Amino acid sequence: MKVNGVAWRSIAEDGPHAVRIVDQTRLPFAFETLRLQSCDEIAHAIRSMQVRGAPLIGVAAAYGLALAMQRDAGDGALAATQALLLATRPTAVNLRWALGRVGALLQPLPPAQRAAAAWQEAGRIAEEDVAINRALGAHGARLIAAVHARTHRPVHVLTHCNAGWIATVDYGTALSAVYQAHDAGVPVSVWVDETRPRNQGLLTAWELAAHGVPHTLIADNAGGHLMQRGEVDLVIVGADRVSRTGDVCNKIGTYLKALAAHDNGVPFYAAVPSPTIDWELADARRDIPIEERPGEEVRRVRGRDGGGRPSEVALADAATAVANPAFDITPARLVTGIVTERGVAAPADLPRLFAATRAAA
Amino acid sequence: MKVNGVAWRSIAEDGPHAVRIVDQTRLPFAFETLRLQSCDEIAHAIRSMQVRGAPLIGVAAAYGLALAMQRDAGDGALAATQALLLATRPTAVNLRWALGRVGALLQPLPPAQRAAAAWQEAGRIAEEDVAINRALGAHGARLIAAVHARTHRPVHVLTHCNAGWIATVDYGTALSAVYQAHDAGVPVSVWVDETRPRNQGLLTAWELAAHGVPHTLIADNAGGHLMQRGEVDLVIVGADRVSRTGDVCNKIGTYLKALAAHDNGVPFYAAVPSPTIDWELADARRDIPIEERPGEEVRRVRGRDGGGRPSEVALADAATAVANPAFDITPARLVTGIVTERGVAAPADLPRLFAATRAAA
Repeated sequence: MKVNGVAWRSIAEDGPHAVRIVDQTRLPFAFETLRLQSCDEIAHAIRSMQVRGAPLIGVAAAYGLALAMQRDAGDGALAATQALLLATRPTAVNLRWALGRVGALLQPLPPAQRAAAAWQEAGRIAEEDVAINRALGAHGARLIAAVHARTHRPVHVLTHCNAGWIATVDYGTALSAVYQAHDAGVPVSVWVDETRPRNQGLLTAWELAAHGVPHTLIADNAGGHLMQRGEVDLVIVGADRVSRTGDVCNKIGTYLKALAAHDNGVPFYAAVPSPTIDWELADARRDIPIEERPGEEVRRVRGRDGGGRPSEVALADAATAVANPAFDITPARLVTGIVTERGVAAPADLPRLFAATRAAA
Repeated sequence: MKVNGVAWRSIAEDGPHAVRIVDQTRLPFAFETLRLQSCDEIAHAIRSMQVRGAPLIGVAAAYGLALAMQRDAGDGALAATQALLLATRPTAVNLRWALGRVGALLQPLPPAQRAAAAWQEAGRIAEEDVAINRALGAHGARLIAAVHARTHRPVHVLTHCNAGWIATVDYGTALSAVYQAHDAGVPVSVWVDETRPRNQGLLTAWELAAHGVPHTLIADNAGGHLMQRGEVDLVIVGADRVSRTGDVCNKIGTYLKALAAHDNGVPFYAAVPSPTIDWELADARRDIPIEERPGEEVRRVRGRDGGGRPSEVALADAATAVANPAFDITPARLVTGIVTERGVAAPADLPRLFAATRAAA
């Protein structure tokens, strides 16, 4: 997608020994990129959320493994690097998926061939991510267009967190649907949840503004009221992991919006590239580890000071106890549909949608 | 309640021609009081939320009317002042109730007697508020104690916004229950919703810290997840207006917590002094005006800078569209009980609880 008229991806190869990322801890207050040249730098970028979003962290981890192989491609280094990267964040399954895929490819290869093979495979995963999200967004855009065809009014979409192009390699998941609807001329306007504590809604607002999509920033508390008033036509969010039964693990607070959507007859969709589906998982609430992030994320808020410079304020001091669970689980019963690159499925139909591939895999 | 060992009320007479308030726009980053000497100053304090909380703005408005009468006690001034104060904030019914009560007392009096009568009546309303909140807190504390008697574990209460002593004249509503349970030796710990956009949860955390009640600050997004995990025993919130059918109008986001409580079998209570009940109202969603507050409340966040000084940062610039509805409606079907000075009633039993008085009135 474009930033000030220039096409960007959230991660891109920068020569054969480095990747360049957009530093998401600086957005939207500053647009800065970082050149990462080692697996350790990539691990740090994932942990600190310089790169974030389930699809993107999967791709970043694949590049991290490839960079590690350039230094030491032995079996010990391979296993240790996979373990190191897997531990950076516990909730999104894309990390495990990407590391597993590259690892399975490298395992049978002689160490001398591993670095090149890993680098190539990371690039392939990145390209696939772009293609998947483009396809998934086309299916999602049809949901938005269908509302417009029925109401003949602008379609009001509510989204939580950032499932935009910077959460993926390009296009985004939930926002891919919005972008494609908008580009097709469907009038669409987005309610953007602020998404405390890290305010990823500001990233969403920044993305939407750059693409010219009308949007309105709201506190996380406001969505239920807007749905009661009939001001939300549908909810689309991304996901960090989806069980084979259609439970959706996504940014903390998603569950509350799903409850409100259900209570008000508003369709609730999760836009999910297939690498985000954890086919081994039946009971998301029991089996997905929910990351507890640092309390400082709740105690502090970043913004701009009076002079427009990036700055932050403390809401509470270190003596104030804080809890900061980063994700929650929306049970499948509250989910209208899962939007994937194969099409849209009710949660119960998800396995059927992917049955052919899974049998082949 | 005490601040640094000194007993304070949120509003108190300061001689016969002024009141002193705690400036709540400065809390918790600074504890400052203001001396208000005119009705205009009081109207400004209500609008700007220097005083806030449904019970407190009712009392403040009564004093505002009394101060106006000290300048001009004619019929024209009486009507104009009531209208001015009523327009300061639209949602809480206590404002209308207090102004109606003082107005009805003054109407038949000769103008020369009105200033003294109004001042006395404002004082009476303030004292009644204290007594009511002490009584309702005792009923609420029994709910908390009953959980402890059953579980023998610390009771985890979740609250939204600030329904503490500074939202009333003293004691608070929801927090009155917490304080009295704590003071009676019941181990209680409070999940404090941040309550964006104005972060009244910081006021709640400040109050609880001052009183020594264990508490944990959380993002507004976290409560549903905590309930799913069984980490919330009950929810208690205040209210700005309750219909005779038990619909609860309270700070934006309350509805989302009520949905989550209902979905997880967690009891949901609203602590409501009787002046907050609007007996004329049957359909809260249709009939309660929901205040739309300035967008800057969403765009900006107040805290402390690196040097500990009160400061603020901008999350978004003025070009970012913002919506800021300040309240929402929790339908009675999601409400376990209304905690009043008369006791705890299921929403449908609320009229019965007050039947005797209402017949007498």
